[in-house]
Amino acid sequence: MKSKTRKVAIVGSGMVGSSCAYSMVNQSICDEIMMIDRTYDRAMAQALDLSHCMDFTGTRTKVYAGTYSDCAGMDVVILTAGANPQPGQTRLDVLDAAAVITKEIVAGIMAGGFDGIFVIAANPVDIVTYMVWKMSGLPRHRVIGTGTSIDSSRLKTLLSDVFSIDPRSVNGYALGEHGESQFVAWSHVTIGGKPILHIMEQHRERFSHLDLDDIARKTKDAGWEIFTRKGSTHFGIGSALAYITRAILNDENKIIAVSAILEGEYGQEDVCAGVPAIIGRSGIHELLELNLNDEESVKFGASCEIVRSGISSLSLSQPE
Amino acid sequence: MKSKTRKVAIVGSGMVGSSCAYSMVNQSICDEIMMIDRTYDRAMAQALDLSHCMDFTGTRTKVYAGTYSDCAGMDVVILTAGANPQPGQTRLDVLDAAAVITKEIVAGIMAGGFDGIFVIAANPVDIVTYMVWKMSGLPRHRVIGTGTSIDSSRLKTLLSDVFSIDPRSVNGYALGEHGESQFVAWSHVTIGGKPILHIMEQHRERFSHLDLDDIARKTKDAGWEIFTRKGSTHFGIGSALAYITRAILNDENKIIAVSAILEGEYGQEDVCAGVPAIIGRSGIHELLELNLNDEESVKFGASCEIVRSGISSLSLSQPE
Amino acid sequence: MKSKTRKVAIVGSGMVGSSCAYSMVNQSICDEIMMIDRTYDRAMAQALDLSHCMDFTGTRTKVYAGTYSDCAGMDVVILTAGANPQPGQTRLDVLDAAAVITKEIVAGIMAGGFDGIFVIAANPVDIVTYMVWKMSGLPRHRVIGTGTSIDSSRLKTLLSDVFSIDPRSVNGYALGEHGESQFVAWSHVTIGGKPILHIMEQHRERFSHLDLDDIARKTKDAGWEIFTRKGSTHFGIGSALAYITRAILNDENKIIAVSAILEGEYGQEDVCAGVPAIIGRSGIHELLELNLNDEESVKFGASCEIVRSGISSLSLSQPE
Amino acid sequence: MKSKTRKVAIVGSGMVGSSCAYSMVNQSICDEIMMIDRTYDRAMAQALDLSHCMDFTGTRTKVYAGTYSDCAGMDVVILTAGANPQPGQTRLDVLDAAAVITKEIVAGIMAGGFDGIFVIAANPVDIVTYMVWKMSGLPRHRVIGTGTSIDSSRLKTLLSDVFSIDPRSVNGYALGEHGESQFVAWSHVTIGGKPILHIMEQHRERFSHLDLDDIARKTKDAGWEIFTRKGSTHFGIGSALAYITRAILNDENKIIAVSAILEGEYGQEDVCAGVPAIIGRSGIHELLELNLNDEESVKFGASCEIVRSGISSLSLSQPE
Repeated sequence: MKSKTRKVAIVGSGMVGSSCAYSMVNQSICDEIMMIDRTYDRAMAQALDLSHCMDFTGTRTKVYAGTYSDCAGMDVVILTAGANPQPGQTRLDVLDAAAVITKEIVAGIMAGGFDGIFVIAANPVDIVTYMVWKMSGLPRHRVIGTGTSIDSSRLKTLLSDVFSIDPRSVNGYALGEHGESQFVAWSHVTIGGKPILHIMEQHRERFSHLDLDDIARKTKDAGWEIFTRKGSTHFGIGSALAYITRAILNDENKIIAVSAILEGEYGQEDVCAGVPAIIGRSGIHELLELNLNDEESVKFGASCEIVRSGISSLSLSQPE
Repeated sequence: MKSKTRKVAIVGSGMVGSSCAYSMVNQSICDEIMMIDRTYDRAMAQALDLSHCMDFTGTRTKVYAGTYSDCAGMDVVILTAGANPQPGQTRLDVLDAAAVITKEIVAGIMAGGFDGIFVIAANPVDIVTYMVWKMSGLPRHRVIGTGTSIDSSRLKTLLSDVFSIDPRSVNGYALGEHGESQFVAWSHVTIGGKPILHIMEQHRERFSHLDLDDIARKTKDAGWEIFTRKGSTHFGIGSALAYITRAILNDENKIIAVSAILEGEYGQEDVCAGVPAIIGRSGIHELLELNLNDEESVKFGASCEIVRSGISSLSLSQPE
Repeated sequence: MKSKTRKVAIVGSGMVGSSCAYSMVNQSICDEIMMIDRTYDRAMAQALDLSHCMDFTGTRTKVYAGTYSDCAGMDVVILTAGANPQPGQTRLDVLDAAAVITKEIVAGIMAGGFDGIFVIAANPVDIVTYMVWKMSGLPRHRVIGTGTSIDSSRLKTLLSDVFSIDPRSVNGYALGEHGESQFVAWSHVTIGGKPILHIMEQHRERFSHLDLDDIARKTKDAGWEIFTRKGSTHFGIGSALAYITRAILNDENKIIAVSAILEGEYGQEDVCAGVPAIIGRSGIHELLELNLNDEESVKFGASCEIVRSGISSLSLSQPE
Repeated sequence: MKSKTRKVAIVGSGMVGSSCAYSMVNQSICDEIMMIDRTYDRAMAQALDLSHCMDFTGTRTKVYAGTYSDCAGMDVVILTAGANPQPGQTRLDVLDAAAVITKEIVAGIMAGGFDGIFVIAANPVDIVTYMVWKMSGLPRHRVIGTGTSIDSSRLKTLLSDVFSIDPRSVNGYALGEHGESQFVAWSHVTIGGKPILHIMEQHRERFSHLDLDDIARKTKDAGWEIFTRKGSTHFGIGSALAYITRAILNDENKIIAVSAILEGEYGQEDVCAGVPAIIGRSGIHELLELNLNDEESVKFGASCEIVRSGISSLSLSQPE
């Protein structure tokens, strides 16, 4: 019988990478996780620590350390290694450092014969996702950034609090850059399938205290709220990575806001931004084009422009 | 330390009741399940059979047999015992038999001092839910019928097939009577938060083969498709019961289409019908009033009228 | 990317087969389940009913109906179709009917090019397992009967009650025929790793009421206790099937008491009986030979003899 | 209806505390987690980060920050805050710092009216567990240290590798101090219920490469292997905490090796050491006394002596 072992490699064994692994172990999402790190000893230590969870959980997941060249047989390679933004820096500031790191990683992985799907959390995630696409030569549907998946989750968590509703009964997206220029597409936020704009219109008094701009701002700032207090954000993003990876491995065709390379969708070309996508075994099956209203369309264009300017500073227009 | 044991009783240990128990055991939704049946030996046999699953699953659930008077300490009592429709009969045909059975059950349970939440799957479910409300004297938010939860699930499963999308990325409801007069509220069906009507409008050619009336019809008929082939439908409805019960026990405030007693919502009074509701620890926390379009409003009214006529034939207008 | 879809077919869509499917759906054990039945409509109805659970669970499992020839790509085929014993009959009584049914099924499946693992629950399970081995021509490690897995689970559940201990902290096996001649190997029953015989010796007074013969008898009779009260036993055995199948698909190398073809182990040849086995991706990786004491060895031999006499009446000594 | 919300507080929001919370969130073990830290902002940041996982998991768990005095209504308080050992230091070296920290924490929590169960991971865990018992005035069954639970898990993971067996089919314990003087009770290590000593005796050649002393050494050193490479061990111990907490909340009566106050068991008094215990809703229901052989008994006594000398240096013999 042929093996159907589902294998995931995680490049970067720091807080994000190891949290993602821990979440996948706890949820038993795959059969094997290979931890990779510039410092092999760190990858090895994380793998050893994670392997001791097995007796305490129902998991099927084996965890071990490996190297770029071992990625050949992986179904998914998760990229968390990058240049983390420092307080005061914007995510774009760390661009140059990220380009160097990413180039080395992708070259090493592709040289080993990798033929799976990249899922990227390294920041600035939209630009790194674009880089990985260009550097790897893979078709765009096999290069997925976490993008605004985490921002959308934060949005739903906030709305869940305000309305006392299960976050899984709320739907909505932050779109565009996973950064300052992102925005909430309020036209498509629904609670139990009912547009939030209708709810607020019908119950003006009851929800008079509710300020959507404030919620959008909190959505965007949540990462920094965490970062400034503990020096990293890793649980939410680790879970986002696990969620996207599970959708791929299980061929779920689940719709998730991710950073995707756009080729005409939303009127944008040759750029990477957070949009809802159907995620399954082949990666991004299709993008979901929302009917953004005029204001949202302008915001989306502006956000793409910011990502594009970051990309253009990289002279990565040709595949390497 | 005070006990926080979460206990569920299931009245009726036939196919629906035992499937519901099996689903709850497999998902480890509560700590204890008490099986009840007119034939005590059957409840006992189901409990014994279910108890042998424990070693094979991660479950925390103990299963045993009991009687109406043991329901005092239960958090939730699930009602599956009723008069099953025979081929050729409508769900309303079985009304009289159901009234007799339900009266005996509810009287027995309330006499024991039950102070929890009823979840009802016995058919005709909208009318039985209304009966239980009247017979029990409990406030309406603590009497919940499965209503169109199962029809809504069937709708989502059908759309999931047609669009190749995870059913959990589809939202939508069948509303009204869990019976012939139910209808799909297409105005509020969304895929990844995008209204299905927009999708079809924008992609006329791609989805030209798609007939929403046909899908609505299949949604309504799915139960009979199953029933005529195997004599009962129990897995889907068993899972619906487990889902609603979990939302209650975990205080999830999840939005689910259930059969609820209406007191002004949707312009209806003193009737029971399938509408989206926020389900949590106290039962129905609130009903979600969708902005139905004119056609849908008419259908909803007509469907309520059918339930109402069933109710009125019962002379249950006074609490007992 | 190559598909790694994990597929299970269930032959027999009655109580056992459909309960097994329901358990696997609730636990999300595989990607696809194909229901098969002599009556295609019944398989179709079960699949349809099961598919409506998806929205209510976290499951990744798609369920559909199929035929023997569709089994080619299956990882596991579960056999539940057989001739159920009637009250008064022993399991061996139904032998002849079982042989005819099994031959037809196995021939159909092997003709389609099946190259996976058989897991068998059809009774008399030890003999049917032997039949399937001979009829299929597959190596013995790819033909697994549920055997005394369910009896062992019942034993653990009983001990769990008596000692107020989690059944998953109890270990022990019923060995031999899944039938009247089975026995509990008390020499290897442990509670938290401590031999039960030591516990009873050290705490004579505390456990003076405890009668191991009585527990062994209840272990053996539990199936009939259920069967006589509700006409079938299906939840426990459905969960046992799901448990064995998960161990295969996830390559768990878990040790489970199953019915295995013996070729020298326990001093037995050319017979099938319940013994602990290491179950993983290739089926039975290895049998675990317990150091039975003299009394247990005699019982095991006698139990094998009973299975052997059933087998010999079949004239199946040559592969077909 | 009375609330049955299951609440856990975690004192110490560093790597161990937050990993434990993340594991509990991923497994949906309780309804609420309150993060506590000397630096409130850190607790708040961890809670916020963890709350963003909700949309990505099936969890029911709400996470928020709080203070000692909020612990009144908690079912379980997990203690992870302590003085971490530095390379070169033994766990006992950090004793004095730990005493000061623990005293402040326990006083704050008890002053608030806490009436639940303490689960302690702070090192040196056996001594801190003893301290908490004395300082809190709670009965001994409500004060549980992680003790050798993590070492036992490491042992099972190692044996699982060597024998290619699911770690959950292996049973065995490291006993005594969670430190240098711990030892493996080989007399009670079983694989599929069969004593490992029997397996090695019967298959001398096959397992001739196997060195039990080496495995015991690796079991003990695994923590340091991780610690020296990444500066902390948190995933394994986080999962151990989640596992013990789940056994309490679900009243599982599962047998787990934990650090328990001994009052005569194993011939020891007024000391705390790792032994198998039955864990349920009331904490430690009972200790399981293994029949240690002479060599093991001597080792256990010596290990207790080391813990005792640590305790005696604290002058905590009177409750405070």
